[in-house]
Formats: sequence, C-alpha cells, structure tokens
Amino acid sequence: MSYRLKDFGSFHVGGRRVETSDLPKRFLSYTPAAAEMELDPNGVYWIEQAYVQFFIPEHHGDRLPIVFLHGGGLTGASWETTPDSRSGWLNHFLEFGYPCYVVDQPERGRAGFSVLPDTLEGDAISRPLEEAWTRFRFGELDGFATRTPYPGCDFPVDYLDAFGRQFVPRWTTTRGMHLAGFRDVVAHIGNCIVICHSQGGDAAHVVASERNDLVQAVVALEPSAFSPDLSDKQLSGQRYLYVFGDYIDRSPFWVDLQQKAIANAEALKAAGADVTWLDLPAAGLAGTSHMIMMDKSSAQSAQMVRRWLAGG
Amino acid sequence: MSYRLKDFGSFHVGGRRVETSDLPKRFLSYTPAAAEMELDPNGVYWIEQAYVQFFIPEHHGDRLPIVFLHGGGLTGASWETTPDSRSGWLNHFLEFGYPCYVVDQPERGRAGFSVLPDTLEGDAISRPLEEAWTRFRFGELDGFATRTPYPGCDFPVDYLDAFGRQFVPRWTTTRGMHLAGFRDVVAHIGNCIVICHSQGGDAAHVVASERNDLVQAVVALEPSAFSPDLSDKQLSGQRYLYVFGDYIDRSPFWVDLQQKAIANAEALKAAGADVTWLDLPAAGLAGTSHMIMMDKSSAQSAQMVRRWLAGG
Repeated sequence: MSYRLKDFGSFHVGGRRVETSDLPKRFLSYTPAAAEMELDPNGVYWIEQAYVQFFIPEHHGDRLPIVFLHGGGLTGASWETTPDSRSGWLNHFLEFGYPCYVVDQPERGRAGFSVLPDTLEGDAISRPLEEAWTRFRFGELDGFATRTPYPGCDFPVDYLDAFGRQFVPRWTTTRGMHLAGFRDVVAHIGNCIVICHSQGGDAAHVVASERNDLVQAVVALEPSAFSPDLSDKQLSGQRYLYVFGDYIDRSPFWVDLQQKAIANAEALKAAGADVTWLDLPAAGLAGTSHMIMMDKSSAQSAQMVRRWLAGG
Repeated sequence: MSYRLKDFGSFHVGGRRVETSDLPKRFLSYTPAAAEMELDPNGVYWIEQAYVQFFIPEHHGDRLPIVFLHGGGLTGASWETTPDSRSGWLNHFLEFGYPCYVVDQPERGRAGFSVLPDTLEGDAISRPLEEAWTRFRFGELDGFATRTPYPGCDFPVDYLDAFGRQFVPRWTTTRGMHLAGFRDVVAHIGNCIVICHSQGGDAAHVVASERNDLVQAVVALEPSAFSPDLSDKQLSGQRYLYVFGDYIDRSPFWVDLQQKAIANAEALKAAGADVTWLDLPAAGLAGTSHMIMMDKSSAQSAQMVRRWLAGG
C-alpha cells in the first residue's frame, strides 16, 4: 500500500470563549522539577470546540471531502487501524482518493472537555466491555466471559481488549455542543459527504437537514438518532445511505432504532432526498456487528459504500 | 509538498484492566431517538493506556522512528498544523523521511481518561490563555489584553485563540501513569528517537535512562522535568539535545528550569551520554517562545534538529 498525500494536518473549530473571574487560586507544581507556583485559573478559555484531522490525497479529482463522525464513547480513532491491526476506513477511503476529515466531537478526544464550573452538566460515564459486547451485538452477555460471540460473528472478538482501550468517557448532556460543533465543522469544510456512526448520526442528520447546500450525501452506519422535523424541508439532490449489520433481531434496542431509521428514510424521501438501504447480511456480509468499520469484512463494506458514493 | 506514506494508523498501548462490581445502575438514553435503558456500569474497563498515531514514509532508509511526546495540558495535536495554519513539526519530520509516532499521554486526548471511582486523584485543571501568555513567554501579563507581546516575539500571537482551542484538562497526580504509558510506548516501538516538549520531558528522561538500549536520542524542547538519579547508569552512545527559546531571563520559573537542565546535562555527560545545547536565540532564532514547534521559525528550528539528528 502507498498513500500519496498533498497535505495533512489538523485544526480546532467552533466552541465558545468563556471568561472566569471568581475561581480560587491554586498552589501546585506541574512536574517534580518545576517550582511550586501560584496558578490563577481566572481568565479566558475556549471550550466546546471540535477537533478535525485532515488528509488530502495528491490526486482526488472531483471527489468531495468525506467527513467522518464517530459514535458515542469513542473518538476519531474509530476510523483508524482496526483493533486487530488491519487498515481502517480512513485508510480505505484515502486509498479510494477521497480527501478525508476525521472529527473528534466536543468533549471527546483531542477536542478536549471543560472542567470549568457550570459548563458540563452531569457526570461523564464510561462503557464497560460487557456493555459493548451486548450493545454492539458481538454476542449475548453469558458468552462474554469466555469470549463466545454469536455464531458467525464478524467482529474480531479476540481483540476486544484493544477495542476497549479506544473507549473514552462521554456526557449524556452535551447534545447542544455536538450539534453546534458539527455545524462549524461543515461550514468550515464546505461541500462534503458525511460518514457517521451510531451517536454521530445525531449531528450528521441535523446538520445535513440544515445545510443541504453543503452536505451532498450522508452515509449513516447504524445511526442512533435521526432527522429533525422535515415537513418544511426540500432535500432534493441530497443522498442518504443507511447501513445496518447482522443480529438486529437479537436486540430490542436495535430493532427499535432500525424501525426509526426506516421511518426516517420515508420522511427523507418525502422531502425529496434519495435514500438507499444497505442491509449488510443481505448483501453478503453475514455476522456484521454495530462496529461495521472494524468488522473483519470492513474492507468489503467500505467498497460497497464507495460504489454507492460513485453513484452505482 | 507531497508526502508518500507506506502506512499510517494508530494503536493504544499499555494501561491496565480494572473491574468494577458495586457501581449503581443508571437509567439513561444516549440520544433523542434511542430508547431509555438501564445501564449497568459494572464490568471490565481498560484505563491509563496511551494513544499512538503513526506515519511511515515510503522511503525512510535507516532513519530511526521519532516518538513525539507533548507537554502538559496539550495532546499530540501540538505537533500538527500550527495555530496559524503552517506545517507542524510532524509534517517537517515526515518530509525529512523519519517514521513518526505521535503520542497522546494517558488521560489526554484520544488516550482517554478514567471516570471510575478512585482511579484519578484530585481535580483536572485547565489553563487560561493568560497563563499560556506568560508561562510560555509570549509577553508580560499587562500586554495580554491588547495582545502586545515581547518585542520580537516569534510566536504567532494573532492566532492565540486557535492555540487556546488545543488546550485540554490535565491532572497533576498522574505522573505514574504517564511514566508507565511511555514505557509501554517505547517497548512497543523499539529503537527510536524521542522528541519531547515541556512536561513530556518527564517521561522522556525517565524512560530514556531506563531504556538506553532502545532510546538512541532525546530532543528535549524546554523540558520541565529531568533524569532520575543517574549515578548507577551507563549511558554511553545515548545522545541528548536541549533546546531553549528566548526571553528565559524574563521568567524566574524558566531560569530555574534552565539551570536544572544545565545540571542534568552535566549528570548525563558524567554517565557517558553525549549532550548538545541548542540556544535558539544564539543560533539566530531570536524571539522564540516555549512553543518552539509553533513559533514562526518552526521550520528553521526543525531543520536545526534534523541536522543534529543526522550527526552534524
């Protein structure tokens, strides 16, 4: 494999400037060698920004940039090397010649979170491996201890610990900053395709419906949130691809979300959008999990998305 | 510019597996569409791992990998695009043909932090722009409001807000996990050069002294921590480059740390290491700040480090 890049780098975008004035001073030392000092924590801060890392292929022709938006409890690292050390979707789509922009949503990863008073409501929560095992449809809970997944499971369960090291805490109260941050990301990048996963479907659907001048297509990998009210929207020309994996019927949680995705697809069509449904098992990828971009078939599912993006 | 990569991707390394059993269940919904559900937070977690993103040039010859270790309150994004959108040191050293590994230390960025009880002591703190302005030697506090830096300041102060968006919270109690994480990073990568900045100097110096079989060279940009006791160490063959910017005499904090760096250089020489001192103003880069890799002269300072690495 060889990747020829014209440019790569990163930026933070959006967020808001806050100023504190009544926090107590602290005395501390940052390292064993640094002198103890008085730290005045009052002043100007930027919070709630998003982080975006970008990779621009040398020859991308007229291919639109792809913006990758991770799911809950995860970061942009989801799109990189898989837990079992294969190429991630970021590698695949760069290889296909797309400029790629990988987002860390506000309060996740390199976007950073705020520790200033009254800026993050509630506690951050993290996900035990057991919840990932069941919620992401690798297997039933009673198979967790022995790492016995569903028969035919396509997720590389032997590398569950490597996957678990990717998990980061999340707040459940930060929807507003996710939407605001993604609005700023899309406004900054311009015409684009959004590939979102799970909770990333929330900001992706909302911003796509608001900015149908910029978001040309949405590839939604098992989204867990959908479009806002579309009754006054005209989305003709905007394309959506819904991608679902296997074992949905084992999980009432996912049966419910898939039904909502079907209803959302109808609402999008009524607003003039072009909607395609990709059922991975029906398309030949049996055993696929919620972590489609990490499943053993991830190179094949990436190819299916590539073909759809190319219009065929 | 063109970058030809043989491979790129990421991994998490190190950390420890913990298991919880007595946390209360919670009821929550992750998104507006997802059903409210019971979340059992008890189970297996990985915490304290480091995140490493790597970029391998197509033709790197016999150049050793460079491991980039960021400073306090920052992440690996420090080495990427500068706040004023120029190429970062990551770009420069890839262009020079070095395989590059960029670390997010445990509890920072994509490494993630732990929200489990009794795993992170104390509060996380964040840094106001005013502290960066003075501590990083852009200017005196009374010049902050008008963005009036020291005369000749080389940091792009017009982009201070973009820089401030890179800041992430830090704990002051996590030294042990930083050292452990970096031990695992170096053990994973093998023979390497470490380029560290500020607080990153802590793990860099400690692990370099422990693993002088693997760490061939340390480039320490204004480190704020130094080697452990070297009296029983034999470090012949290991190379160190200390790099300091301008305006040190304006800051008692940095006068103190520079004196400690000089003493550490003597201790390293006594242990057989080869130590070089690079005073940037004396070398022609007046006005340089603590953020050497972001200063307007960052391409030139990178070239100076390149020449030293090449042995000249």
